[in-house]
Order: sequence, then structure tokens, then C-alpha cells
Amino acid sequence: MNAEYYASRSALAEPSRRRKEPVVWSTWRPGAPLRIGEKLAFEENGYLVFRRRFSANEVARLRGEADRLREHAGELVDPETVVREPEGDSVRSIFETHRQSEVFRELAADIRLLDVARWLLGDDVYIHQSRLNYKPGFEGEAFPWHSDFETWHSEDGMPGMRAVSASILLDDNTACNGPLMVIPGSHLRFFPCAGETPEEHYRESLRRQRYGVPDPDLLTELARTYGIEALTGEAGTVVFFDCNLLHASAGNITPLPRSNLFLVYNALSNRLGDPQDGLRPRPEFLASRRFEPLE
Amino acid sequence: MNAEYYASRSALAEPSRRRKEPVVWSTWRPGAPLRIGEKLAFEENGYLVFRRRFSANEVARLRGEADRLREHAGELVDPETVVREPEGDSVRSIFETHRQSEVFRELAADIRLLDVARWLLGDDVYIHQSRLNYKPGFEGEAFPWHSDFETWHSEDGMPGMRAVSASILLDDNTACNGPLMVIPGSHLRFFPCAGETPEEHYRESLRRQRYGVPDPDLLTELARTYGIEALTGEAGTVVFFDCNLLHASAGNITPLPRSNLFLVYNALSNRLGDPQDGLRPRPEFLASRRFEPLE
Repeated sequence: MNAEYYASRSALAEPSRRRKEPVVWSTWRPGAPLRIGEKLAFEENGYLVFRRRFSANEVARLRGEADRLREHAGELVDPETVVREPEGDSVRSIFETHRQSEVFRELAADIRLLDVARWLLGDDVYIHQSRLNYKPGFEGEAFPWHSDFETWHSEDGMPGMRAVSASILLDDNTACNGPLMVIPGSHLRFFPCAGETPEEHYRESLRRQRYGVPDPDLLTELARTYGIEALTGEAGTVVFFDCNLLHASAGNITPLPRSNLFLVYNALSNRLGDPQDGLRPRPEFLASRRFEPLE
Repeated sequence: MNAEYYASRSALAEPSRRRKEPVVWSTWRPGAPLRIGEKLAFEENGYLVFRRRFSANEVARLRGEADRLREHAGELVDPETVVREPEGDSVRSIFETHRQSEVFRELAADIRLLDVARWLLGDDVYIHQSRLNYKPGFEGEAFPWHSDFETWHSEDGMPGMRAVSASILLDDNTACNGPLMVIPGSHLRFFPCAGETPEEHYRESLRRQRYGVPDPDLLTELARTYGIEALTGEAGTVVFFDCNLLHASAGNITPLPRSNLFLVYNALSNRLGDPQDGLRPRPEFLASRRFEPLE
């Protein structure tokens, strides 16, 4: 039934559908890792920004590790997990960072992230995907508007909306360098996308996404209705956002890079099944099938 | 001598040079159209932001006129003055707006703009160039880093740094839709650019600029030293910026367009001579040679 309810990637776009899962899976009580106002804001908007969640020293260590992985990508990381910019050869993303780096393995289990993710999802969690997005200076290209869940459901067989992303800002994200932009409230509906998914679509989509992108007229209407927020913040800020929130980010034409780390927590009960339309599962580094709960 | 002092577009980039003209050409006295603090800030930073300079009603009228010109570009404006996006066919810019529209002709002589321009330049002024930049939703592409003066000197024969641009924001310019970005203080030096200018370069450069762009290492150093400011503001805001200030703007991937009008005021005493390197003068709509002072 899940597959049918959230059908997407048919030749024509279907009408949108109301989200059937809750956004927050725990009942708020004193002692919860979120304040009551934060819980309500996350339900309504689909995201939360925690400023200065990591100290300057911690950020320096994380960014040092991100730089080290990028500069020695040839020796340190599996080449299959490295995505380069569509124009030029700069590293755009490195995936599976929590398995390729001890520093990021520890970070994924950091109580300041893990407690929030477990509480929001009301379940044990595992890392569905992790990646460093470097967005290099001058040539870091845009990520178009999309819902992660639309891709994860269609291409990876994620059954329902019970996953959350944490973005850890490793550089100051300003109005200038292509910050994460979101359409608040868009996580409450599912917007099917037109177009069938080609096999091995991910090889292209990680550089430039073409499928799983909502209709432009629909996006225009949503932007007019709900507005668009740029989630700017200093390095050390953490943004949690729901798996179905429409988001994007512009290119970075400043001379300076803008690195963020993404960790996607999925509920253990929401583990992946088969992809839609008989597609082959995407590789482990994009959609993990090792369902081991984080401690 | 001017030509030699501000030489650019040779095969190799020359070292940078100190600006030899003042930034503000009038002595401040009570009753000046700028406050003393504004004058000092313009000298130091190379730009000034005046919020709510035009009322909501005035903005509605200006934006209506901008929309009308774009939607009926075929009938209302000279096709040579229309520039389209590099990808797709959307209107990117319309030039010579102050001659093709009565509304914008009046605006160029509006006392709230003209008085400031005349005072900053300490001379009578004329419109060197005017343009609407539409930056359409989804596909509005970036403008790379450049100094206008570098182009106007090299390609148009503008002798010295005695011109100022006014950007009138016709839509809210936010962190999301590709606002004007500047490197404060960069107007105090001249940064020659490598590469010879091809004939009729403007046909390409108006869609995607490739010459007259400073060296990336230099830009990186400047961004580290001076920082980068995004000049966001509500519709009706006016930004004045010096002709030699390094500026850029990112692409607009939001669904909504972001239109700004630019009026370039040049001092009558700084009227154009011959372009550098024996280039043919660019067309009137890019670099006016009708040196008629505004009243």
C-alpha cells in the first residue's frame, strides 16, 4: 500500500497527497531533548536550526577532517563515493563519510545529534546515508528543488516518512555562498514527480538532478504560498530537516568553499524494501542496507 | 596617460594599482543629500544602501512597467537591447530602458537619485547605461565577479573613475534569490584582468562574461581580507555603488523572478573617448555617447 500511496515517477505527475505519517513520533514530556516550542515548530515548518551546537574547537576538528578527505580523496576514500562538479573536477560530495572516517563515525553517534533524531522518530535509528557537500568556491553548482523522501521512496524503497537529516555547518553559511533553502510546511504533502527513472540514474543525478524534481508551476505556487527561507548560520550550527521537506541550494560563486556535513537518520522500523518499478537497489554508499542501530 | 595607468586585458595580468581619483567629489556641508556618516561609509566601502527610498505604490508602478517591457519585448523595445538567459529563452536584461520607457526616463531624473549622483560625482551627469536585470526564477544565471569600470575603461573608453551606479530593487532581494554581492573597499584599487578582448565581445559577455574577470587567486585573497557583503533589501531600496567596486550575483533558483533596475550616472567631464587597443566602440545602448546632462 505504501508504494501506491506515494507513487511517483510516472509519465505524468499525479495530484499531491496528504502525508500520512506524523512528523514527530514522540510525545513531548519535560526532559525531552527538544523544548516544546521546538517540537511544535518542527511539526509546522519541517526544520529546526540549533545555533552553536558545536564549539569552535569541534568545528575546526571536523573541518580539518573534511579538508583531509577532500585533499587526499585518492588514497583515503573509495573512489565510487566521490562526486565531482559537473563543470570542472573539484570534489562536490563524498558519501559514506561515517564509515570512511573515524571522526565522522563518532560524530554520527554524538548525543547532541542522535538523541534528537531518536526522539523525533520515536525509534532506534541507523544511518541511511551520510555525505560531505563541499560546494567549492566559484564553481560549486546549485542543487535543484526536491524532497529527499521522493527519491528515497522511489529509488531506494524507503517505505514511509520516518527519517530526518542533520546538516552540520562546517563553514559559515551566509546569504552569499549558497545556503540551504527550504519551503516551510512543504513536508506535509507528497508531491509526485513526472518522468520515469532511468537505470543507474544516480550516476547523473548526484552531479545534476533531472528526475524527482517537482513541476515548476507547482513550486511557484508553493513559494508564493509558503515563502522560502534561507537557513543561514555560523559554522557549528546544526539544521534538522524532515525527509519530505522541499529544499534546494544555489550555486556558490564566492571565492571561498562552503562545506556542510549531512547525516540521514532513518527509523529502524522504516528500513528499506525494494525500489519502485523494479529498479535495482542503489549502491550501499547511497542507501545503506546495513540496518544496525546506533548506540 | 589614463589609458596606460589603468591598462588591462593584456595577455598577462598586471599588478594592481591604487585608484587615482577621489571616491566622493564634493566636500560635505550641511544640506548635502547625504549625511556625513553616509559620505564616509561610501568612501570607505564603495556602496550605500538607502532603504524604502521608493514607496510601495511607486514600486508597484515601476515593476508593472518592467513586467510590461519584458512581456511585450517584441513590440515595445529594440530587439538589439534584449539579452536572453544562456540556457533557455527567458529575458535576462533589457538595456536603454531610460529611452524606451517614459516611466524609466522620469525615474532617471528623479531627484532622490539624481541629486545623490551629482553630489557624489561633483559634476553634471548623464546616463552612461541603463538596464533592467530580470533574473527569472529557476534559470536566472549568475553574474561573475567584476569591476564595471574595468569594462567601461577597456571597451568603452571611459577615462577615469567618476561614475556611479544606482540599483533600484523592484523585488525583495533576499538571501535566496541572488542578491547583489560586493567586496567592500575593493573600489580603492584597480585590478587589471588577463586576456585580450575579442571584437564584439559584448554579444557573448552580456550572457556570460569571460573577459574582464579578475584572477581567482586574487579574488580569494580579497574575499579573505575584506569579506563579502550581500546587499539584501526590500523592494524600493536603492543601492548606490562606485563604478570600480568588485561585485557579482549568484543565480536565482527560486521559482520567483528578482528584477532590479540599474542606472549608471557618469560625470559630464568623464565622457567617453576611444576604447583601448583599437577596439570599435560598443553600441549606444551599452555605452551612450549622447552626453546630455540630466536636469
